[in-house]
Amino acid sequence: MEQRISIVTLGVKDLAASKRFYVEGLGWKPAFENPEIIFFQVGGMVFGLFLRNELAKDFEADPSTFGRAAISLGYNVRAKAEVNPLMKRAAEAGATILKPAREASWGGYSGYFADPDGFAWEVAWNPAWPVAPDGTIEFR
Amino acid sequence: MEQRISIVTLGVKDLAASKRFYVEGLGWKPAFENPEIIFFQVGGMVFGLFLRNELAKDFEADPSTFGRAAISLGYNVRAKAEVNPLMKRAAEAGATILKPAREASWGGYSGYFADPDGFAWEVAWNPAWPVAPDGTIEFR
Repeated sequence: MEQRISIVTLGVKDLAASKRFYVEGLGWKPAFENPEIIFFQVGGMVFGLFLRNELAKDFEADPSTFGRAAISLGYNVRAKAEVNPLMKRAAEAGATILKPAREASWGGYSGYFADPDGFAWEVAWNPAWPVAPDGTIEFR
Repeated sequence: MEQRISIVTLGVKDLAASKRFYVEGLGWKPAFENPEIIFFQVGGMVFGLFLRNELAKDFEADPSTFGRAAISLGYNVRAKAEVNPLMKRAAEAGATILKPAREASWGGYSGYFADPDGFAWEVAWNPAWPVAPDGTIEFR
């Protein structure tokens, strides 16, 4: 098994609300959308927003068991000065600020916001993990 | 905001069990590990397994609110014949099979397994989304 993730799909309650957040709020451009799902190209990967009941059917789960996800998605920036404006932009787009950006124990600067379904996104500047021109990061 | 995800971090209950699954079972090689976290390089991204109570602290959540995650991670293969052996390998590594692989409505072939913490992984062959030599996929 190669070490890669091809797709990250979030189960969402209200696709219109998700679209307002990711598309109108954050400025992401969908590659595909229908009334159940929206796909985005994110680097060499696909990011999906899928109605949670449909996602539950897809992996044969009971959606009543869904709770807060023990997961975070990270968005690393190239410069420390990018963190605060991005947290502000997310808040203006309707995100809940989980943790205002601050100096981190690991030597960087980061904060967390939650998207309309409560999924945690960390906006991080990590001087040890430079972001390449193509947006990829390499663990060092 | 560029369209990319830098890091996907799963909150796990037992890091040793996660390591048995991902490292011994699936054969992934850690880039870093300590008693709280294991990082893997996955393509141009980082994948983390982080003790869920520590992850909860990081984004200031109450871990008692964590439930089943309404999320799936996808691993797309290059050929249909890779799906069944990979599902078998995951099962042998201790995964729960959520949905045995079958023909999909969207024209491919896929199944789902759950990792030790219940996170759903879809193993998919999608003839419309070829996997590039470097492991990336492009939405078409």
